[in-house]
Amino acid sequence: MSALLTDLYQLTMAAGYWLAGKTAERATFELFVRRLPENRNFILAAGLPQAVDYLLNLRFSEEDVRYLRTLEQFARLPEAFFDTLRAFRFTGDVFAVPEGTPLFAGEPLLTLRAPLMEAQLPETYLLATLGFQTLIATKAARMVEAAGGRGVVEFGTRRAHSPGAGVLAGRAAYIGGCLGTSNTLAGKDFGIPVFGTAAHSWVMSFPTELEAFRRLQELLGPATTYLIDSYDTLEGARRAASLGKPLWGVRLDSGNLVELAREVRAILDAAGLPDAKIMATGDLNEYKILELAAGGAPIDAYGVGTDLATSSDAPRLGAVYKLVEMEVAGERRYTAKYSEEKATIPGAKQVFRYAHHDVLGRAGECPAPDCEALLKPLILGGKLVQPLPSATEARARARAALDRMPKKLKSLFECDPAYPVELSDELQHLMEEVRQQARVNGT
Amino acid sequence: MSALLTDLYQLTMAAGYWLAGKTAERATFELFVRRLPENRNFILAAGLPQAVDYLLNLRFSEEDVRYLRTLEQFARLPEAFFDTLRAFRFTGDVFAVPEGTPLFAGEPLLTLRAPLMEAQLPETYLLATLGFQTLIATKAARMVEAAGGRGVVEFGTRRAHSPGAGVLAGRAAYIGGCLGTSNTLAGKDFGIPVFGTAAHSWVMSFPTELEAFRRLQELLGPATTYLIDSYDTLEGARRAASLGKPLWGVRLDSGNLVELAREVRAILDAAGLPDAKIMATGDLNEYKILELAAGGAPIDAYGVGTDLATSSDAPRLGAVYKLVEMEVAGERRYTAKYSEEKATIPGAKQVFRYAHHDVLGRAGECPAPDCEALLKPLILGGKLVQPLPSATEARARARAALDRMPKKLKSLFECDPAYPVELSDELQHLMEEVRQQARVNGT
Repeated sequence: MSALLTDLYQLTMAAGYWLAGKTAERATFELFVRRLPENRNFILAAGLPQAVDYLLNLRFSEEDVRYLRTLEQFARLPEAFFDTLRAFRFTGDVFAVPEGTPLFAGEPLLTLRAPLMEAQLPETYLLATLGFQTLIATKAARMVEAAGGRGVVEFGTRRAHSPGAGVLAGRAAYIGGCLGTSNTLAGKDFGIPVFGTAAHSWVMSFPTELEAFRRLQELLGPATTYLIDSYDTLEGARRAASLGKPLWGVRLDSGNLVELAREVRAILDAAGLPDAKIMATGDLNEYKILELAAGGAPIDAYGVGTDLATSSDAPRLGAVYKLVEMEVAGERRYTAKYSEEKATIPGAKQVFRYAHHDVLGRAGECPAPDCEALLKPLILGGKLVQPLPSATEARARARAALDRMPKKLKSLFECDPAYPVELSDELQHLMEEVRQQARVNGT
Repeated sequence: MSALLTDLYQLTMAAGYWLAGKTAERATFELFVRRLPENRNFILAAGLPQAVDYLLNLRFSEEDVRYLRTLEQFARLPEAFFDTLRAFRFTGDVFAVPEGTPLFAGEPLLTLRAPLMEAQLPETYLLATLGFQTLIATKAARMVEAAGGRGVVEFGTRRAHSPGAGVLAGRAAYIGGCLGTSNTLAGKDFGIPVFGTAAHSWVMSFPTELEAFRRLQELLGPATTYLIDSYDTLEGARRAASLGKPLWGVRLDSGNLVELAREVRAILDAAGLPDAKIMATGDLNEYKILELAAGGAPIDAYGVGTDLATSSDAPRLGAVYKLVEMEVAGERRYTAKYSEEKATIPGAKQVFRYAHHDVLGRAGECPAPDCEALLKPLILGGKLVQPLPSATEARARARAALDRMPKKLKSLFECDPAYPVELSDELQHLMEEVRQQARVNGT
């Protein structure tokens, strides 16, 4: 894991902290979203194993050091600085909300406390990996909600923002409630069910559609899913039906899905195949799924690609990573930004989840007996202190939390008022104190 | 490069082709976009080196084979099939449009001809890597056009769809005309200029803003760029100005950028620093850049993150990879899809670029002397036949092409009529022939 996969300013700051003799200072950063993405009433935390893997394996190779020395900003730095890079290990503490937990605006997904340089450097990577998977898990939860009990499968790798993003999208979509993914590497690496049978090119590579269908049945038996829209959808349905059992069903990928699903259902039923299923694909999203369901289309499963793997209606989570505390020579200093639109709350925090509201409090506060403190220790002194739940466990956690969640929060549109997140008295007190102090100092 | 980073159906089809004895059949696929993304009048091709790297290094490891055998669909396949996977090498031909070339709807970025299984398997990866970089290069070109000569730097890794996507976004944005990127690994791996100085956390980690600024100047000298909005932007500008030279300038990251830029400019000028520059950042995109430029804001450079690295107004390119020809036992068969919205044109194609229009013709057609055939041989018989241009060369190609392009195509909005792309007589003739044939066969 190259330490250069970060913004250059993390590295210039590292050099600056080193030069300024600030290496013994400890910093606490929090990763959170200021505002929920449009039309979302919650986000679903995801991406922790990749974040942990990064932190525990973050290194500067000799090649990395050589590259840095070619940059003007680093050219004059003494060898001792590069030795510091060569010896770099993450030695800090990380507290994180378990994957699959719904969160609201302002609630940290992750808190990181470490010597300043170690805490600063990972910002870019942590935001990108936690931000992306959280975005996709959240999007998947919307699709699954709209599907109202019918299965949703993630098919989006080809439209993901790079092949690697496709692997992580498959993982995150599964946590968000999808049945599985078409991404085979995601299946292998994360133990996620994988789905897929054949494409239009399969049909077209045989002289006739019927021969293509027969060959597919020979190959897949009871898993056979005929893609029936290459030439004429209803004709395709008749050809599929003529082959009888075994089959799983058929897939529709174009046309008016409500009408076609009804007509195809009738063809399958008439052929004595009432158990044959209909899957719909083709530029679907949660709104179209809702419409199909509302229109009573006899669709048994949905395959969603582009709009899921890119979270196309809200392709950015807007997560931030903010310095909230410094510890310098044993003394603690709380930090915040007061600029117009981007103010932050000082001090390390904890999220206390009650039955019907959350309280954002200070990290040290004693939780009431009837609430759960969501940020749990994950890495202490650079060592993982508890095994990470699997994607399957995270998915189960998400399912349970979503089942408990008030229905209105699961709307595909923004609900008003938002879920109540209160600030604890202690946190409000700290905010006031820090702001006063800043006024006195003129910073 | 794991061959499992693909959709499962590519692998089930591979098994099916193998079982059906179709391994000697050769297929030609084309990668193109059916429609341009909203508000785009062209796309800028990018991502070829990653596509080539994938094709030349595509392998099934023993671990990959072991995983596949755990799947029901593969459990009954004979060992000989898995031996075929173990021996898998890409042996086909690839023709591609050079990176940095503007393209229009329907024009192939890449044509791939290979034995059926080798041609099918790479679909997912090729679409994701070429699609993503083309999307971002196109988006970057819009930003650069809007900036009208002021520099644009890519700062989006933290909001990219995974850290790896951030590296590729930095590369693609550079090809699209950005001055460089904040992604240090993109700088190292692709020889792209890297930019970045310090974040809000730098300012906040020192007891006062002034001390933070002084330390930055010590570190960076003439490259010093003060981020002045942590507490109060104008106060920050005065503090920065008080330190005099050396400096590059200041960065504004929030507030009304037109007003603030004017006031900050006045502060810098009054302090005898007329050469100090102003960079603007903070949720910018091409429309906001256009407004800032139109408002006469004295901004010298723009840093763009989220909206660039996610192409947020159009986060999907919608590229497809379609079978257009089969060669079976020496006989050629042309393939197409006739379904309602997703019809395709049969036969391998070539893009002939004339001065004021393009012609989409058949691959074998003889080009007129006054046009350029854009699809050029890249891999023949599994071997790279010409070195790939660097990102810097691709960027220069894009710049030259964009300079020649009619102004109206560079609008941030859709222009009507679209750029003329005609079909050659030979291609039209083939289309008609294939459609007739399909009617006769009833496929």
